[in-house]
Amino acid sequence: MPFIMNAWYVAAWPREVEAGKILARTICNEPMVLFRDEAGTAVALEDRCCHREMPLAMGWIEGGTVRCSYHGLRFDGRGKCVEIPGQPNVPPRARVRAFPLVERYGWLWVWPGDAAKADPASIPAIFQRMDHPDWTACGGTTYVKCHYQLISDNLLDLTHETYIHRSSLGNQAVVEHPIATKSDADKVVVQRLIPDHEPAPFWKANLFRKLGKHVNADRWQIIHFEPPANLVLDVGVTPAGRPRGEGVEGCNTNAITPETEDSTWYFWGFARKFSRDDAALSDKLVETIAKIFEEDRAACEAVHAVMKRNPGRKVVDVNADQGTILARRMVTGRIEAEAAAAARAAE
Amino acid sequence: MPFIMNAWYVAAWPREVEAGKILARTICNEPMVLFRDEAGTAVALEDRCCHREMPLAMGWIEGGTVRCSYHGLRFDGRGKCVEIPGQPNVPPRARVRAFPLVERYGWLWVWPGDAAKADPASIPAIFQRMDHPDWTACGGTTYVKCHYQLISDNLLDLTHETYIHRSSLGNQAVVEHPIATKSDADKVVVQRLIPDHEPAPFWKANLFRKLGKHVNADRWQIIHFEPPANLVLDVGVTPAGRPRGEGVEGCNTNAITPETEDSTWYFWGFARKFSRDDAALSDKLVETIAKIFEEDRAACEAVHAVMKRNPGRKVVDVNADQGTILARRMVTGRIEAEAAAAARAAE
Amino acid sequence: MPFIMNAWYVAAWPREVEAGKILARTICNEPMVLFRDEAGTAVALEDRCCHREMPLAMGWIEGGTVRCSYHGLRFDGRGKCVEIPGQPNVPPRARVRAFPLVERYGWLWVWPGDAAKADPASIPAIFQRMDHPDWTACGGTTYVKCHYQLISDNLLDLTHETYIHRSSLGNQAVVEHPIATKSDADKVVVQRLIPDHEPAPFWKANLFRKLGKHVNADRWQIIHFEPPANLVLDVGVTPAGRPRGEGVEGCNTNAITPETEDSTWYFWGFARKFSRDDAALSDKLVETIAKIFEEDRAACEAVHAVMKRNPGRKVVDVNADQGTILARRMVTGRIEAEAAAAARAAE
Repeated sequence: MPFIMNAWYVAAWPREVEAGKILARTICNEPMVLFRDEAGTAVALEDRCCHREMPLAMGWIEGGTVRCSYHGLRFDGRGKCVEIPGQPNVPPRARVRAFPLVERYGWLWVWPGDAAKADPASIPAIFQRMDHPDWTACGGTTYVKCHYQLISDNLLDLTHETYIHRSSLGNQAVVEHPIATKSDADKVVVQRLIPDHEPAPFWKANLFRKLGKHVNADRWQIIHFEPPANLVLDVGVTPAGRPRGEGVEGCNTNAITPETEDSTWYFWGFARKFSRDDAALSDKLVETIAKIFEEDRAACEAVHAVMKRNPGRKVVDVNADQGTILARRMVTGRIEAEAAAAARAAE
Repeated sequence: MPFIMNAWYVAAWPREVEAGKILARTICNEPMVLFRDEAGTAVALEDRCCHREMPLAMGWIEGGTVRCSYHGLRFDGRGKCVEIPGQPNVPPRARVRAFPLVERYGWLWVWPGDAAKADPASIPAIFQRMDHPDWTACGGTTYVKCHYQLISDNLLDLTHETYIHRSSLGNQAVVEHPIATKSDADKVVVQRLIPDHEPAPFWKANLFRKLGKHVNADRWQIIHFEPPANLVLDVGVTPAGRPRGEGVEGCNTNAITPETEDSTWYFWGFARKFSRDDAALSDKLVETIAKIFEEDRAACEAVHAVMKRNPGRKVVDVNADQGTILARRMVTGRIEAEAAAAARAAE
Repeated sequence: MPFIMNAWYVAAWPREVEAGKILARTICNEPMVLFRDEAGTAVALEDRCCHREMPLAMGWIEGGTVRCSYHGLRFDGRGKCVEIPGQPNVPPRARVRAFPLVERYGWLWVWPGDAAKADPASIPAIFQRMDHPDWTACGGTTYVKCHYQLISDNLLDLTHETYIHRSSLGNQAVVEHPIATKSDADKVVVQRLIPDHEPAPFWKANLFRKLGKHVNADRWQIIHFEPPANLVLDVGVTPAGRPRGEGVEGCNTNAITPETEDSTWYFWGFARKFSRDDAALSDKLVETIAKIFEEDRAACEAVHAVMKRNPGRKVVDVNADQGTILARRMVTGRIEAEAAAAARAAE
């Protein structure tokens, strides 16, 4: 298994699953259909009719159930077949796999692994600012043709801002200040503080919006990682020497979901404490961040293509890679633990 | 071998092989060129010059022989090289494989297997209504990116009409009536009779054309299958309780030819006993059926893609699958028998 | 290894590597970036940053060094890392592979194999007429989706001119005259003389340009092959019975460079002794030859596709194949010798 399967992954924004419609999405190599049952609750089934393997995504919704468009079998939100046209009985084996699905923190989370182990309490609470009353949140989705860990790597080493994002988030000050990396069994934290400098264009503009003037700033970047690939970045700038509350404080949330080994659904958000009443700012931020993440997408896809050509080649690590290395080790440990548990269960 | 090789397969309509021109087509993984020899008889050769492996399809016809466009070798309709430019002698080993080809029932049939076993008497006589004086025939070709057996499956279980073809051939009456399935060593027959109902749109329109009024009808569907994938469907409707001759009688012929494991040439025809003098009706029927078969194409391609992702996964059979199961068992038996005969011959 | 690796291959025309820019090109499966160092000398590095495998081709040039666009590592023309942003020290292992590169005979040559064995003296001198004072040269590049040896094969048997190039280089006289083939350990020479005939369209036009009248001609074709795939064709026509100097003498140079097993950079030139002061003629020749080589491209790609489908199938050789057979044997011998040397070195 190339992924941690017993974990919650964001599958979609709630707005993507409309009543009476089907959303097809593949999560960790599992093709799924998402739709709303009669109560309006989002559910996820395997995207394959158990009869003749037709994708259910080609069917339609009837009263909160999905009808296969080929021979008409109909399934409820738990995957149970409730009708086989042309015969009175429905054998119990006529069912498709259902995946646990929970709506939380503004996202729909699915559990692609063993449903018996799916505990909603383990949905990462680091994302709570996405629907917290003290914050205003917005966000978007970027589809990337790379292995999902390349996006974690990207976010865990912000050195790249100076080069890839030199017109928005990066400047020379970023690479001139060291990082501090901490970890425990379940998370990695990488922190960089950049005191008293002329801020990079993105932050300069947002600080100007609040203050009405350009000033030197203290900048902070605190990256929180939890496996498989949940990352929250506490970020912001404040006038040099002043408390953070006087500046602009943001929180970039990143839920990175493997589609396949070679493609990723990258769900991201931005919660802010500044300019909360500026209705147009959310749209502007989504547009700006989507453009910035296009630069990451191009980089991650290029690296992925090189890695596919050279599987297993050694790389040269640098000082800034501490967070990346710890995070990858944590993911590998989880995958090995799942494999060991599966082997024990098979005995 | 993924296919029954010692069998006749339709390769083309005769009109597709024009004098002086080359038609390239792959049948059961064998790339072929079809052309007409000096007598105007269609022939089939392997699409590969024996000299430097140039496709003969890139050459041209000279007096009923095919000239390779690369170094000019020339081959007759039996695959014998009749000229090597620049040298007087032609060694006997200079030849390309020729495939037996017979024109019958309005189609060109090739035999991709052992030529010594090719008996034209084994071309399925179930297709004879395609050039029979009591019937008027028309037809077309649909190219489908799926394994050819998915198209047999489709035709052997017409339950799908109620869903895939709900705007033309299907209605609720189809799934409400049971099928009766019979088989012997060489064929499968599946029959469904649907008495006294409001006919589906396609049949309603054709019955109205004949009667000038709308009436309830008795409908019949009798599916004849012979391996590898030859299917004739006796179909029609007649006013409820009246003899078939008073209604509209049709015969849908289906010759399904594997191109590769993942693609199929689907040749189909429709012979009718009704409105035989209506010259425009043939064109209209071809257009209508081609549109209906586009719906099948989309379904078969979708199922094929799921099966490729999940080779060998179990499916749940329903009552309507009896014909499909018997037909697949028959094809598997033929392939195993060919493999066993090949193994004996190799000893 | 599918290629002779210890050999010089043309990677580019010098004009393709502009100061301050990066040219990405794959040679023998090795992705490379070509750029000019501070002295203006072209260099070639592996197209992969040693840090996180980003293609260097996505970076930019700073003072004759290449900056990786992801985390900013910078490399000089010998592949040494000269800067790691955010840390003072650069460990010696931080480097990317550099490939020997020499500019000669109007081309940039790289050595994809063991750099210690790269001797510029072994760049094939048969190409010297490309920058010789007695000749005027021009040329172009054709990208072909085939194995590179199919292009050598093509050039070693000019029988194909009569068919593929029947509107330019070929006519019946070509195939009517025999070839003479010679070889030693390092080269193959195939010669065909075609006395006193109406020349093919390309030569007819060039002879007319010089003489102002149409005459019968003696034509010569002398093909020089050196492995891996360096071919010079001495070609021309002169009025029948007259010395070559009274006619039009050309020299077609062909440096054929594998990109991958399935694709080839085909660099070709044409040096001439006739109409040397006609400035527009070079452009016209490049345009004409590029069109002719498009015909070869189509043929080679078609043959390649057939060979991929039928690996290892036997072909039927004809008399004209002597040069092709000897050349392929020579290449196979070199690849085997490299493999044997590598095995000895590994012991």
